[in-house]
Amino acid sequence: MVDILHKVGITSSTAEVYTALTTVEGLAGWWTTNTGGVGDGLGGVLQFRFAAGGFDMKVLELDPGRRVLWEVVDGPDEWIGTQVDWRLAQVDDYAVVLFSHRGWKEPVDFMHHCSTKWAVYLLSLKSLIETGKGAPHPHDVKIDSWD
Amino acid sequence: MVDILHKVGITSSTAEVYTALTTVEGLAGWWTTNTGGVGDGLGGVLQFRFAAGGFDMKVLELDPGRRVLWEVVDGPDEWIGTQVDWRLAQVDDYAVVLFSHRGWKEPVDFMHHCSTKWAVYLLSLKSLIETGKGAPHPHDVKIDSWD
Repeated sequence: MVDILHKVGITSSTAEVYTALTTVEGLAGWWTTNTGGVGDGLGGVLQFRFAAGGFDMKVLELDPGRRVLWEVVDGPDEWIGTQVDWRLAQVDDYAVVLFSHRGWKEPVDFMHHCSTKWAVYLLSLKSLIETGKGAPHPHDVKIDSWD
Repeated sequence: MVDILHKVGITSSTAEVYTALTTVEGLAGWWTTNTGGVGDGLGGVLQFRFAAGGFDMKVLELDPGRRVLWEVVDGPDEWIGTQVDWRLAQVDDYAVVLFSHRGWKEPVDFMHHCSTKWAVYLLSLKSLIETGKGAPHPHDVKIDSWD
């Protein structure tokens, strides 16, 4: 089992970041404009769609201002059953986001791609909150021939 | 042991990317302007300096257009003994870079930070080669209060 890890510090409150991670409007502002969901509360399933496909995430944990945990219930084979974990902490003027996408079976090329792409989206999240403008798909930074 | 993985596709030849990874001038164009070295050939030690410190990397493998492998011989405790591995492959118009920074003992917060920061620098490498202009430290994208 191998994990993708990232960290960003956002000049804001953890409450603001939490909102961007737990509402369809917030998520659509930094990850993909094509975000929907059968509920965004605990047990709900969020649907993220991209040009090449997408992911369905079940919301497993919601601790306001502290933690959000999703499990991938539909999407590419390599993603199914993996967990996306967001831990938030206020450190002075920064909302610190510790991100992990855990439970990959193998460190395949697609995992390398997704790791870099998650960094791109975390910087989009930071930009959304600090400047009011994120770069969600399809306006995201392209990193290779896959996306 | 946990690893940082990334991938970028650069519109260029692997030979061009290899040069940017194996010469002081190339490295200074995307990672840190303060790059030096006691030789950049096999067995040489490259020195990368940042505002807060730096890393010394021993060059363990050089396979032109295919692979570069460094071992960290000086720097922060968490980095010493880890290896930074660059694998290159030409796929159509892209030089595909598979990056791994292996051998971290623990998934500490600093590892999360370095993972995101490596993505920033890989996009700087891509930009350097595709546009002629990278964003090496101190002109790099800041991700949190650490850098």
